[in-house]
Amino acid sequence: MKRQSDLRSSRQAVVRALSGGCSSVFPLHFDPDGDSVGASVALARALASRGKKTWVVSRDPVPAMFEFLPGARDVISLADFHDEFDTLVLVDQSDPGRSGFSPEDVRGKTIVNIDHHLSNNGFGDAHYVDKNASASCEMVYHILRDMTVPLDAELAALLYTGILTDTGSFRYDNTTSGCLRVTSALVRAGARPALLARRVYETRTVGNLRLVGQALSRLHISDCGSVCWTSLTQQMLACTGAQDNEGEGIVSYTRMVAGVEVGLVFKETEDGKTKVSLRSKDRVDVAGIASRHGGGGHARAAGFTLDGPMDLAIRVVVDEVCAAVRGSASP
Amino acid sequence: MKRQSDLRSSRQAVVRALSGGCSSVFPLHFDPDGDSVGASVALARALASRGKKTWVVSRDPVPAMFEFLPGARDVISLADFHDEFDTLVLVDQSDPGRSGFSPEDVRGKTIVNIDHHLSNNGFGDAHYVDKNASASCEMVYHILRDMTVPLDAELAALLYTGILTDTGSFRYDNTTSGCLRVTSALVRAGARPALLARRVYETRTVGNLRLVGQALSRLHISDCGSVCWTSLTQQMLACTGAQDNEGEGIVSYTRMVAGVEVGLVFKETEDGKTKVSLRSKDRVDVAGIASRHGGGGHARAAGFTLDGPMDLAIRVVVDEVCAAVRGSASP
Repeated sequence: MKRQSDLRSSRQAVVRALSGGCSSVFPLHFDPDGDSVGASVALARALASRGKKTWVVSRDPVPAMFEFLPGARDVISLADFHDEFDTLVLVDQSDPGRSGFSPEDVRGKTIVNIDHHLSNNGFGDAHYVDKNASASCEMVYHILRDMTVPLDAELAALLYTGILTDTGSFRYDNTTSGCLRVTSALVRAGARPALLARRVYETRTVGNLRLVGQALSRLHISDCGSVCWTSLTQQMLACTGAQDNEGEGIVSYTRMVAGVEVGLVFKETEDGKTKVSLRSKDRVDVAGIASRHGGGGHARAAGFTLDGPMDLAIRVVVDEVCAAVRGSASP
Repeated sequence: MKRQSDLRSSRQAVVRALSGGCSSVFPLHFDPDGDSVGASVALARALASRGKKTWVVSRDPVPAMFEFLPGARDVISLADFHDEFDTLVLVDQSDPGRSGFSPEDVRGKTIVNIDHHLSNNGFGDAHYVDKNASASCEMVYHILRDMTVPLDAELAALLYTGILTDTGSFRYDNTTSGCLRVTSALVRAGARPALLARRVYETRTVGNLRLVGQALSRLHISDCGSVCWTSLTQQMLACTGAQDNEGEGIVSYTRMVAGVEVGLVFKETEDGKTKVSLRSKDRVDVAGIASRHGGGGHARAAGFTLDGPMDLAIRVVVDEVCAAVRGSASP
């Protein structure tokens, strides 16, 4: 109960700060995702509907898969932004440095911090940080309710998309009862789940799917049956026409096999190193394995880079992961 | 409002029928899916908790991916069921013939019909048919509330799984505000979204994923860019070790490419014919195309079988589908 009332009063402080300003800038974080775009654009639009001047700016372009979102094409390149403003609103970012604004840029401005990341330390003149929220979009929904902004179908689509993408289509551990209750309200307000899922997930390139295909064709399973891996070479990227970053989702497939506890992708980098991505299902802390090799991540998703060639990396790492599975308790 | 009160009174009639009986049989429909298992087992357990005798029976085995569900291993093979009963409860089936019970078997019994399929004509002594429900599990949730059965974590997991699978992880058009509100309540009662999604979706065979891999490696795009297809041969099934039915989900990938309106899979059958599966995104009615070739389905998902060899089938059908895309209005 304490937590709920603390959250409510921090949210009210944020609403006061937003209402007190006249002109607010919303910088997306670097490499913006659906939650960054959805939450920032929705909140900027809500303030604009109350007569405020607002800009959404971004160092990096909005990814093509989110260009369909209302307002996504109005996002301004950070390099082209030179207007005066009084309030900087950082949504979905625990590190103010990832906004592209330096401390000098924002001296004397009101800084508002709205975020759900565990690592957010509560910086800013007003902050509303809810580490149990599924997405910043879930938090912006509550802000809009406090501001009594009517939720139209466009705002609902923006917020729905952030929750959809940050929960991995309601499959990650952050999918809570509260997040689903908000999602239900967004659909009632006009968000269309099937349409939004198609827009977000059915805009892949042929090159990407062919690369996924080649990677899945060469899946390996360890003798113990608990570890599944595949590998990506520069040659596979070249012959499928996929971009370098288009192999990123492949590791999630390696964990889909029945009985597999850890899935891995080994990727040959342009400079001859081996990038290793790991996902675990229930028991193994892959962040621990990654940190022993100078990498990092979470218990269920981590990564690191090795200097050696891929064949050697596969032999060493698969053995290490098999041992970790053996050492982990059964669920 | 009329519809809501009609639904409520039909649901109350079903609750009265269930409460009036002493011994109820719940036959799963043939080829049972998550919604069939989840809804039937949950309702049978709820009645059992009220002192009724209940059996869940099935002609076909519960698929391996749903064996983890509470009560799934207590499902009895229809062939082994010889007990006396007074009530037959058909959940999630519009055709009583798909229960495995003949009209003679059920003469003199009370028949209860609980279903969300469009084709359900409201048969039975009591029927609760809601064609706007996402899943039969959503309807059983409302029945349990009317019966004031406390929702424990096991019942919640059963009902959540049916909604998850019948909405394609909340991506199909039947994902409504009401379905998400029920889902939120199920999570509050103890259903664990991430765990259940892993149990349902991360239990594939290596052979299945390798087959997906081979199919995606050979994706083709039509010259117009709107049609994407791939093919499955008997040789691919043999060399990946996949079962004959493990190619079924592959057609959904063919529609994931940006700009593609229709995706197809051509599959060589054991007797030398070509099975064609079609999925459309927004505009083309693929059921119309399928029916011209003696097949059928829905506007967005259909299929048919051609007598000729695969190469010829691909040439003819891709041309026909490209013409259908050209003839369809832009969205």
